[in-house]
Amino acid sequence: MSNQIYIGVDLGGTNIKVGICDEQGNLLHTYEGPTGAEEGPDAVLGRIAQYVRKIVEDSPYEWEQVAGIGAGLAGFLDIQEGVVKFSPNLQWRNVEAKRTLEALLGKPVKIDNDANVAALGEAWAGAGAGVPNIVCYTLGTGVGGGIIINGKIYQGSNGMAGELGHMAIVPDIEAINCGCGQVGCLETVSSATGIIRMAKEAVERGEHTSLALHENMEAKHVFDAAKSGDEVALRIVNRAAYYLGRSMASISIVLNPKRFVIGGGVSKAGEILFAPIRETFKKYTPEVAAEGVEIVAATLGNDAGVVGAAGLNLR
Amino acid sequence: MSNQIYIGVDLGGTNIKVGICDEQGNLLHTYEGPTGAEEGPDAVLGRIAQYVRKIVEDSPYEWEQVAGIGAGLAGFLDIQEGVVKFSPNLQWRNVEAKRTLEALLGKPVKIDNDANVAALGEAWAGAGAGVPNIVCYTLGTGVGGGIIINGKIYQGSNGMAGELGHMAIVPDIEAINCGCGQVGCLETVSSATGIIRMAKEAVERGEHTSLALHENMEAKHVFDAAKSGDEVALRIVNRAAYYLGRSMASISIVLNPKRFVIGGGVSKAGEILFAPIRETFKKYTPEVAAEGVEIVAATLGNDAGVVGAAGLNLR
Repeated sequence: MSNQIYIGVDLGGTNIKVGICDEQGNLLHTYEGPTGAEEGPDAVLGRIAQYVRKIVEDSPYEWEQVAGIGAGLAGFLDIQEGVVKFSPNLQWRNVEAKRTLEALLGKPVKIDNDANVAALGEAWAGAGAGVPNIVCYTLGTGVGGGIIINGKIYQGSNGMAGELGHMAIVPDIEAINCGCGQVGCLETVSSATGIIRMAKEAVERGEHTSLALHENMEAKHVFDAAKSGDEVALRIVNRAAYYLGRSMASISIVLNPKRFVIGGGVSKAGEILFAPIRETFKKYTPEVAAEGVEIVAATLGNDAGVVGAAGLNLR
Repeated sequence: MSNQIYIGVDLGGTNIKVGICDEQGNLLHTYEGPTGAEEGPDAVLGRIAQYVRKIVEDSPYEWEQVAGIGAGLAGFLDIQEGVVKFSPNLQWRNVEAKRTLEALLGKPVKIDNDANVAALGEAWAGAGAGVPNIVCYTLGTGVGGGIIINGKIYQGSNGMAGELGHMAIVPDIEAINCGCGQVGCLETVSSATGIIRMAKEAVERGEHTSLALHENMEAKHVFDAAKSGDEVALRIVNRAAYYLGRSMASISIVLNPKRFVIGGGVSKAGEILFAPIRETFKKYTPEVAAEGVEIVAATLGNDAGVVGAAGLNLR
């Protein structure tokens, strides 16, 4: 086999997942092991190098075929220098991730943040494949995002492009404070955290809803109740969807991407979430801008990060 | 003189302005003449060719030095094919502008819409010079916009990127219908038309304001009254500025441009408009995204269109 392969690393707070992709973004092999973040950056970077060598050894490929290694992680990064300036979940500050890994592995290494890397994965080999300009949302504990222009991650002037969870989209009259210090961020209503908060508030207000039965509220409970016709739950889901749709309307008239790709745990709710998103998008986007623009579910699931990280050296 | 020159054409409903730029975007010569739109597309395109030949003949440059010709105009365009699909002010439908002009002049011709071309002009040789990523607003009768990424006009999937006037930014509770068919567009509050409408409504409601003195209300009257301390006028100016600032906050978290450039007649109001825009922008943009981002006035004035059009063949 003489073709080149690309290694992706999804560096999480608990686990490190590594994967081998071919030049088309097909994920051929994966390996997952503990992060051991408590042992500090040097130990974690050493473990990444160890997992990368192991997955190639266990595969039918030769080390010489490895064209490059990419890693995605949560945090503020200096992409050019490959430095993790601050990562809250790893508790890293100013860690020279790129140089250390390049020294350990003798291959080119690139790093990027997890939402950008997931977007690149979907653009390369997922729901955005073949489309040059896409915008991805990751709906989880927070709302992440990534912008792909001409098939590449678009970073913006401070590397802050695509931080869609912090679009100030909720009008002041009904806005609450966001953890980022702003008010009315999309994340306050359209993340799992936001949905759970709205559900708890409805229960506390004594609204008539089956959500009152849940002691440990999850976003899934709210979607399930909405599907069963619970009107309070439906109102909460519609509100989360409404602001997502409005944010897409704004983005459409700025960036006019061909496709919006929505991933993350919350997106698994399916049509009960997607239908009102599409309806709001259509209502607030001029027809000429909305024409042919699609709002679709991500297809790579948890693999988006490792595939996109592998793509950092190709795209 | 062996250097190449670039010709820009600003095709308006009343006048055609042509200009010669050098490779740095310096506007060396201009010539302006009537459009004669009532004679139809062929006559207008013939006139453009005539003006282009004339300005070169009257200049110290040789025809051989002309590297290319660009034209900016208002309307829906097929940029790739160089076809004007529909132009409301010229009343053109499916006009093959690029091919016709190339046949008449024997030089490469590119066309683009007026707001994009103005943005490119400012990016090349105006308030955005030297900055790779900028977003331009043109505040006039409507609100136009243009997005420059890596020094080039970014078109988006339907060529609708940068149509900033139609960002749905005003909350439903206070939104009005826009001419585009949507509700709550930025243009309804932050254009000259929007400012005049709000001023007239305040007068009709019998509010205590010096604006009641104006029979033919202009945006300038509102800014002048605001500068004189008229509280109603100040409220209207602040509202126009507020939604501009909020739209920039949204754009910053999506595109994170280094600089916002604001041009057009309304922008001449100066600090009374810019100060509340900057204040709102700062309030609604997370600090890490807002850091180092500038909101500045355009510097090329009415020349932005002709300079940017000249740049279409270079950038």
